[in-house]
Amino acid sequence: MISLSLMTSNPGKLREFRHELSSLGIEVTKSSEDCEEIQAETLEEVVRYCLKDLKRRKIRDVMIDDSGLFIDSLGGFPGVYSSYAFKTLGCKGILKLMDRLDDRKAHFSCCIGCLLRGGKEIIVTEGVKGRISAEERGSQGFGFDPIFVPDGESRTFAEIGIEEKNPISHRGRAIRAFAITLTGKVERTK
Amino acid sequence: MISLSLMTSNPGKLREFRHELSSLGIEVTKSSEDCEEIQAETLEEVVRYCLKDLKRRKIRDVMIDDSGLFIDSLGGFPGVYSSYAFKTLGCKGILKLMDRLDDRKAHFSCCIGCLLRGGKEIIVTEGVKGRISAEERGSQGFGFDPIFVPDGESRTFAEIGIEEKNPISHRGRAIRAFAITLTGKVERTK
Repeated sequence: MISLSLMTSNPGKLREFRHELSSLGIEVTKSSEDCEEIQAETLEEVVRYCLKDLKRRKIRDVMIDDSGLFIDSLGGFPGVYSSYAFKTLGCKGILKLMDRLDDRKAHFSCCIGCLLRGGKEIIVTEGVKGRISAEERGSQGFGFDPIFVPDGESRTFAEIGIEEKNPISHRGRAIRAFAITLTGKVERTK
Repeated sequence: MISLSLMTSNPGKLREFRHELSSLGIEVTKSSEDCEEIQAETLEEVVRYCLKDLKRRKIRDVMIDDSGLFIDSLGGFPGVYSSYAFKTLGCKGILKLMDRLDDRKAHFSCCIGCLLRGGKEIIVTEGVKGRISAEERGSQGFGFDPIFVPDGESRTFAEIGIEEKNPISHRGRAIRAFAITLTGKVERTK
Protein backbone atom coordinates (compact mmCIF):
# COMPACT_ATOMS: atom_id res chain seq x y z
CA MET A 1 0.00 0.00 0.00
CA ILE A 2 1.42 3.37 -1.05
CA SER A 3 0.40 6.36 1.04
CA LEU A 4 0.73 9.91 -0.25
CA SER A 5 -0.59 13.15 1.18
CA LEU A 6 -2.23 15.80 -0.99
CA MET A 7 -1.52 19.45 -0.30
CA THR A 8 -4.85 21.17 -0.83
CA SER A 9 -7.49 23.16 0.96
CA ASN A 10 -10.08 22.11 -1.61
CA PRO A 11 -12.21 19.13 -0.50
CA GLY A 12 -13.39 18.64 -4.09
CA LYS A 13 -9.82 17.98 -5.24
CA LEU A 14 -9.17 15.58 -2.37
CA ARG A 15 -12.35 13.69 -3.29
CA GLU A 16 -11.29 13.36 -6.94
CA PHE A 17 -7.79 12.13 -6.00
CA ARG A 18 -9.19 9.54 -3.58
CA HIS A 19 -11.83 8.41 -6.05
CA GLU A 20 -9.21 7.80 -8.72
CA LEU A 21 -6.27 6.43 -6.71
CA SER A 22 -7.89 4.19 -4.08
CA SER A 23 -8.66 1.48 -6.66
CA LEU A 24 -4.95 1.46 -7.53
CA GLY A 25 -3.98 0.76 -3.95
CA ILE A 26 -2.79 4.30 -3.28
CA GLU A 27 -4.05 5.85 -0.07
CA VAL A 28 -4.51 9.64 -0.16
CA THR A 29 -4.38 11.68 3.03
CA LYS A 30 -4.70 15.44 3.42
CA SER A 31 -1.38 17.18 4.01
CA SER A 32 -1.19 19.91 6.63
CA GLU A 33 1.80 21.43 4.85
CA ASP A 34 1.61 24.40 2.57
CA CYS A 35 3.91 26.05 0.05
CA GLU A 36 4.11 29.38 -1.73
CA GLU A 37 2.57 29.55 -5.18
CA ILE A 38 4.39 31.93 -7.48
CA GLN A 39 2.86 34.20 -10.11
CA ALA A 40 3.71 32.50 -13.40
CA GLU A 41 2.50 31.94 -16.93
CA THR A 42 2.09 28.17 -16.61
CA LEU A 43 0.85 25.68 -14.04
CA GLU A 44 4.12 23.75 -14.38
CA GLU A 45 6.18 26.72 -13.20
CA VAL A 46 3.99 27.03 -10.10
CA VAL A 47 4.29 23.30 -9.37
CA ARG A 48 8.07 23.19 -9.96
CA TYR A 49 8.69 26.10 -7.61
CA CYS A 50 6.59 24.45 -4.91
CA LEU A 51 8.44 21.13 -5.28
CA LYS A 52 11.76 22.97 -4.94
CA ASP A 53 10.49 24.56 -1.76
CA LEU A 54 9.30 21.20 -0.36
CA LYS A 55 12.64 19.62 -1.23
CA ARG A 56 14.46 22.32 0.75
CA ARG A 57 12.14 21.72 3.69
CA LYS A 58 12.70 17.93 3.45
CA ILE A 59 8.99 17.19 3.03
CA ARG A 60 8.40 13.98 1.09
CA ASP A 61 5.61 11.71 -0.23
CA VAL A 62 3.44 14.71 -0.92
CA MET A 63 1.40 15.63 -3.99
CA ILE A 64 0.41 19.06 -5.21
CA ASP A 65 -2.14 19.93 -7.87
CA ASP A 66 -2.46 23.19 -9.73
CA SER A 67 -5.28 23.56 -12.20
CA GLY A 68 -6.77 26.30 -14.26
CA LEU A 69 -9.31 27.24 -16.88
CA PHE A 70 -7.73 28.82 -19.95
CA ILE A 71 -10.07 30.72 -22.27
CA ASP A 72 -8.76 31.30 -25.81
CA SER A 73 -10.51 34.60 -26.56
CA LEU A 74 -9.40 36.05 -23.19
CA GLY A 75 -5.71 35.44 -23.84
CA GLY A 76 -5.72 32.41 -21.55
CA PHE A 77 -7.42 34.22 -18.65
CA PRO A 78 -8.03 33.21 -15.85
CA GLY A 79 -5.37 30.48 -16.27
CA VAL A 80 -2.96 30.13 -13.36
CA TYR A 81 -5.09 32.61 -11.37
CA SER A 82 -8.34 30.68 -11.74
CA SER A 83 -8.95 30.22 -8.04
CA TYR A 84 -8.52 33.95 -7.39
CA ALA A 85 -10.76 34.79 -10.37
CA PHE A 86 -13.35 32.34 -9.09
CA LYS A 87 -13.28 33.91 -5.63
CA THR A 88 -13.59 37.48 -6.90
CA LEU A 89 -15.49 37.30 -10.21
CA GLY A 90 -17.10 33.88 -10.02
CA CYS A 91 -18.77 32.11 -12.95
CA LYS A 92 -20.93 35.20 -13.53
CA GLY A 93 -17.87 37.41 -14.06
CA ILE A 94 -16.45 35.02 -16.64
CA LEU A 95 -19.81 34.86 -18.45
CA LYS A 96 -19.87 38.66 -18.50
CA LEU A 97 -16.39 38.76 -20.05
CA MET A 98 -17.56 36.22 -22.65
CA ASP A 99 -20.67 38.23 -23.50
CA ARG A 100 -20.99 38.69 -27.29
CA LEU A 101 -17.79 36.68 -27.95
CA ASP A 102 -18.24 34.06 -30.67
CA ASP A 103 -15.08 32.13 -29.89
CA ARG A 104 -15.93 30.29 -26.65
CA LYS A 105 -13.12 27.70 -26.85
CA ALA A 106 -11.41 26.93 -23.56
CA HIS A 107 -9.52 24.17 -21.84
CA PHE A 108 -9.09 23.01 -18.29
CA SER A 109 -5.55 21.97 -17.44
CA CYS A 110 -4.19 20.15 -14.40
CA CYS A 111 -0.58 19.76 -13.36
CA ILE A 112 0.29 17.30 -10.61
CA GLY A 113 3.65 17.32 -8.90
CA CYS A 114 4.93 14.82 -6.39
CA LEU A 115 8.09 14.52 -4.36
CA LEU A 116 8.85 10.96 -3.32
CA ARG A 117 10.74 9.62 -0.34
CA GLY A 118 13.91 8.92 -2.33
CA GLY A 119 13.92 12.51 -3.66
CA LYS A 120 12.44 11.57 -7.05
CA GLU A 121 10.04 14.03 -8.63
CA ILE A 122 7.02 13.38 -10.80
CA ILE A 123 5.36 16.14 -12.82
CA VAL A 124 2.50 15.43 -15.22
CA THR A 125 0.11 17.78 -17.01
CA GLU A 126 -3.13 16.83 -18.72
CA GLY A 127 -6.00 18.82 -20.11
CA VAL A 128 -9.49 18.67 -21.52
CA LYS A 129 -10.78 20.85 -24.33
CA GLY A 130 -14.24 22.33 -24.41
CA ARG A 131 -16.17 25.56 -24.48
CA ILE A 132 -17.71 28.13 -22.15
CA SER A 133 -21.47 27.68 -21.86
CA ALA A 134 -23.94 30.54 -22.31
CA GLU A 135 -25.13 30.25 -18.70
CA GLU A 136 -24.34 28.40 -15.45
CA ARG A 137 -25.75 24.89 -15.33
CA GLY A 138 -25.52 22.09 -12.75
CA SER A 139 -24.63 21.85 -9.09
CA GLN A 140 -21.96 19.14 -8.89
CA GLY A 141 -18.19 19.63 -8.98
CA PHE A 142 -16.66 22.94 -7.96
CA GLY A 143 -15.05 26.12 -9.31
CA PHE A 144 -15.83 26.89 -12.93
CA ASP A 145 -17.44 23.46 -13.54
CA PRO A 146 -20.93 25.02 -14.09
CA ILE A 147 -19.76 26.97 -17.18
CA PHE A 148 -17.45 24.43 -18.84
CA VAL A 149 -18.78 22.00 -21.47
CA PRO A 150 -16.19 19.38 -22.50
CA ASP A 151 -15.88 18.51 -26.19
CA GLY A 152 -18.35 15.82 -27.26
CA GLU A 153 -20.78 16.75 -24.46
CA SER A 154 -23.77 19.05 -24.18
CA ARG A 155 -23.71 19.08 -20.37
CA THR A 156 -21.38 21.14 -18.19
CA PHE A 157 -18.94 19.49 -15.77
CA ALA A 158 -21.33 20.49 -12.97
CA GLU A 159 -24.16 18.55 -14.61
CA ILE A 160 -21.99 15.42 -14.87
CA GLY A 161 -21.42 13.41 -11.69
CA ILE A 162 -17.92 12.53 -10.46
CA GLU A 163 -18.29 8.97 -11.88
CA GLU A 164 -18.72 10.34 -15.38
CA LYS A 165 -16.51 13.40 -14.95
CA ASN A 166 -13.29 11.75 -13.75
CA PRO A 167 -12.77 9.58 -16.86
CA ILE A 168 -12.74 12.67 -19.10
CA SER A 169 -11.67 15.54 -16.86
CA HIS A 170 -8.25 17.24 -16.82
CA ARG A 171 -7.74 16.14 -13.22
CA GLY A 172 -8.90 12.56 -13.81
CA ARG A 173 -6.52 12.28 -16.76
CA ALA A 174 -3.65 13.86 -14.83
CA ILE A 175 -4.22 11.59 -11.83
CA ARG A 176 -4.17 8.47 -14.02
CA ALA A 177 -1.04 9.61 -15.89
CA PHE A 178 0.50 10.34 -12.50
CA ALA A 179 -0.45 6.89 -11.16
CA ILE A 180 1.20 5.17 -14.15
CA THR A 181 4.41 7.15 -13.67
CA LEU A 182 4.30 6.64 -9.92
CA THR A 183 3.92 2.87 -10.19
CA GLY A 184 6.94 2.80 -12.50
CA LYS A 185 9.01 4.95 -10.15
CA VAL A 186 8.04 3.03 -7.04
CA GLU A 187 8.92 -0.28 -8.70
CA ARG A 188 12.24 1.06 -9.95
CA THR A 189 13.19 2.25 -6.46
CA LYS A 190 12.61 -1.16 -4.88
CA MET B 1 24.35 60.98 -3.30
CA ILE B 2 22.36 57.84 -2.58
CA SER B 3 22.09 55.34 -5.41
CA LEU B 4 19.42 52.65 -5.47
CA SER B 5 18.41 50.28 -8.22
CA LEU B 6 14.78 49.57 -9.05
CA MET B 7 13.76 46.04 -9.95
CA THR B 8 11.23 46.49 -12.73
CA SER B 9 10.63 45.68 -16.35
CA ASN B 10 8.19 48.57 -16.62
CA PRO B 11 9.76 51.77 -18.05
CA GLY B 12 6.75 53.78 -16.80
CA LYS B 13 7.52 52.85 -13.21
CA LEU B 14 11.22 53.67 -13.61
CA ARG B 15 10.26 57.08 -15.02
CA GLU B 16 7.99 57.84 -12.06
CA PHE B 17 10.65 56.80 -9.52
CA ARG B 18 13.31 58.93 -11.21
CA HIS B 19 10.99 61.89 -11.56
CA GLU B 20 10.17 61.82 -7.84
CA LEU B 21 13.53 60.87 -6.29
CA SER B 22 16.11 62.77 -8.35
CA SER B 23 15.19 66.08 -6.73
CA LEU B 24 15.90 64.48 -3.35
CA GLY B 25 19.41 63.54 -4.40
CA ILE B 26 18.58 59.87 -4.89
CA GLU B 27 19.82 58.33 -8.11
CA VAL B 28 17.68 55.52 -9.51
CA THR B 29 19.19 52.89 -11.79
CA LYS B 30 17.48 49.87 -13.35
CA SER B 31 18.30 46.60 -11.62
CA SER B 32 19.04 43.55 -13.72
CA GLU B 33 18.02 41.28 -10.83
CA ASP B 34 14.66 39.61 -10.56
CA CYS B 35 12.72 37.83 -7.85
CA GLU B 36 9.73 35.52 -7.66
CA GLU B 37 6.36 37.12 -6.98
CA ILE B 38 4.05 34.91 -4.96
CA GLN B 39 0.29 34.60 -5.32
CA ALA B 40 -1.09 36.48 -2.33
CA GLU B 41 -4.00 38.56 -1.13
CA THR B 42 -2.00 41.75 -0.53
CA LEU B 43 0.80 43.66 -2.22
CA GLU B 44 2.73 43.68 1.06
CA GLU B 45 2.91 39.88 1.15
CA VAL B 46 4.36 39.86 -2.38
CA VAL B 47 6.92 42.53 -1.48
CA ARG B 48 7.92 40.88 1.83
CA TYR B 49 8.50 37.53 0.13
CA CYS B 50 10.66 39.17 -2.53
CA LEU B 51 12.73 41.04 0.08
CA LYS B 52 13.31 37.77 1.95
CA ASP B 53 14.52 36.21 -1.29
CA LEU B 54 16.85 39.15 -2.02
CA LYS B 55 18.23 38.98 1.52
CA ARG B 56 19.08 35.31 1.05
CA ARG B 57 20.80 36.14 -2.24
CA LYS B 58 22.73 39.00 -0.57
CA ILE B 59 21.40 41.61 -3.00
CA ARG B 60 21.29 45.06 -1.45
CA ASP B 61 20.37 48.70 -2.21
CA VAL B 62 17.51 47.56 -4.37
CA MET B 63 13.89 48.73 -4.51
CA ILE B 64 10.84 46.78 -5.59
CA ASP B 65 7.39 48.11 -6.33
CA ASP B 66 4.18 46.15 -6.49
CA SER B 67 1.00 47.96 -7.40
CA GLY B 68 -2.54 47.08 -8.21
CA LEU B 69 -6.00 48.34 -8.98
CA PHE B 70 -8.59 47.13 -6.49
CA ILE B 71 -12.25 47.43 -7.54
CA ASP B 72 -14.79 47.30 -4.71
CA SER B 73 -17.69 45.72 -6.59
CA LEU B 74 -15.40 43.02 -8.04
CA GLY B 75 -14.21 41.84 -4.63
CA GLY B 76 -10.91 43.65 -5.05
CA PHE B 77 -10.21 42.23 -8.52
CA PRO B 78 -7.75 42.55 -10.27
CA GLY B 79 -5.70 43.55 -7.19
CA VAL B 80 -2.36 41.78 -6.85
CA TYR B 81 -2.85 40.26 -10.32
CA SER B 82 -3.39 43.59 -12.09
CA SER B 83 -0.51 43.21 -14.51
CA TYR B 84 -1.74 39.77 -15.61
CA ALA B 85 -5.30 41.07 -15.92
CA PHE B 86 -4.04 44.02 -17.94
CA LYS B 87 -2.12 41.72 -20.27
CA THR B 88 -5.02 39.33 -20.83
CA LEU B 89 -8.22 41.38 -20.41
CA GLY B 90 -6.94 44.93 -20.78
CA CYS B 91 -8.94 48.04 -19.93
CA LYS B 92 -11.76 46.80 -22.18
CA GLY B 93 -12.16 43.60 -20.13
CA ILE B 94 -12.43 45.56 -16.89
CA LEU B 95 -15.01 47.91 -18.45
CA LYS B 96 -17.01 44.87 -19.56
CA LEU B 97 -16.94 43.46 -16.01
CA MET B 98 -18.12 46.86 -14.73
CA ASP B 99 -20.97 47.06 -17.23
CA ARG B 100 -24.26 47.90 -15.50
CA LEU B 101 -22.56 48.11 -12.06
CA ASP B 102 -23.51 51.24 -10.15
CA ASP B 103 -20.75 50.99 -7.56
CA ARG B 104 -17.62 51.99 -9.52
CA LYS B 105 -15.42 52.75 -6.48
CA ALA B 106 -11.83 51.57 -6.77
CA HIS B 107 -8.39 52.36 -5.48
CA PHE B 108 -4.88 52.07 -6.79
CA SER B 109 -2.37 50.89 -4.22
CA CYS B 110 1.41 50.82 -4.34
CA CYS B 111 3.77 49.01 -2.01
CA ILE B 112 7.47 49.81 -2.15
CA GLY B 113 10.06 47.59 -0.51
CA CYS B 114 13.75 48.27 -0.19
CA LEU B 115 16.66 46.32 1.21
CA LEU B 116 19.55 48.55 2.25
CA ARG B 117 23.26 47.84 2.44
CA GLY B 118 23.24 47.35 6.22
CA GLY B 119 20.39 44.81 5.92
CA LYS B 120 17.68 47.29 6.96
CA GLU B 121 14.31 46.95 5.25
CA ILE B 122 11.81 49.64 4.31
CA ILE B 123 8.23 48.80 3.35
CA VAL B 124 5.65 51.51 2.66
CA THR B 125 2.19 51.31 1.14
CA GLU B 126 0.12 54.20 -0.14
CA GLY B 127 -3.04 54.43 -2.17
CA VAL B 128 -5.36 56.73 -4.05
CA LYS B 129 -9.12 56.41 -4.11
CA GLY B 130 -11.23 56.98 -7.16
CA ARG B 131 -13.63 55.33 -9.56
CA ILE B 132 -13.70 53.37 -12.81
CA SER B 133 -14.66 55.56 -15.75
CA ALA B 134 -17.37 54.62 -18.23
CA GLU B 135 -14.86 54.43 -21.10
CA GLU B 136 -11.12 54.59 -21.78
CA ARG B 137 -9.76 58.13 -21.94
CA GLY B 138 -6.26 59.56 -22.40
CA SER B 139 -2.95 58.27 -23.68
CA GLN B 140 -0.44 59.07 -20.93
CA GLY B 141 0.66 56.78 -18.11
CA PHE B 142 0.36 53.01 -18.44
CA GLY B 143 -1.71 50.00 -17.37
CA PHE B 144 -5.20 50.80 -16.16
CA ASP B 145 -4.54 54.58 -16.07
CA PRO B 146 -7.08 55.23 -18.92
CA ILE B 147 -10.01 53.94 -16.84
CA PHE B 148 -9.16 55.32 -13.38
CA VAL B 149 -10.47 58.71 -12.27
CA PRO B 150 -8.99 59.81 -8.92
CA ASP B 151 -11.31 61.42 -6.35
CA GLY B 152 -11.71 65.17 -6.91
CA GLU B 153 -10.89 64.85 -10.62
CA SER B 154 -12.96 64.40 -13.76
CA ARG B 155 -9.97 63.28 -15.86
CA THR B 156 -8.46 59.78 -15.87
CA PHE B 157 -4.84 59.22 -14.85
CA ALA B 158 -4.05 58.81 -18.55
CA GLU B 159 -5.40 62.29 -19.27
CA ILE B 160 -3.22 63.81 -16.55
CA GLY B 161 0.49 64.26 -17.32
CA ILE B 162 3.19 62.85 -15.03
CA GLU B 163 3.74 66.34 -13.50
CA GLU B 164 0.17 66.43 -12.27
CA LYS B 165 -0.21 62.71 -11.67
CA ASN B 166 2.76 62.08 -9.36
CA PRO B 167 1.62 64.47 -6.59
CA ILE B 168 -1.67 62.58 -6.19
CA SER B 169 -0.97 59.06 -7.45
CA HIS B 170 -0.53 55.93 -5.30
CA ARG B 171 3.02 55.53 -6.59
CA GLY B 172 3.94 59.21 -6.14
CA ARG B 173 2.67 59.08 -2.56
CA ALA B 174 4.45 55.79 -1.85
CA ILE B 175 7.72 57.08 -3.32
CA ARG B 176 7.60 60.21 -1.16
CA ALA B 177 6.73 58.22 1.98
CA PHE B 178 9.58 55.90 1.08
CA ALA B 179 12.02 58.81 0.59
CA ILE B 180 11.16 60.22 4.02
CA THR B 181 11.74 56.85 5.70
CA LEU B 182 14.89 56.26 3.66
CA THR B 183 16.43 59.59 4.61
CA GLY B 184 15.78 58.77 8.27
CA LYS B 185 17.31 55.31 7.97
CA VAL B 186 20.35 56.51 6.03
CA GLU B 187 21.03 59.25 8.56
CA ARG B 188 20.57 56.87 11.47
CA THR B 189 23.07 54.43 10.02
CA LYS B 190 25.78 57.09 9.63
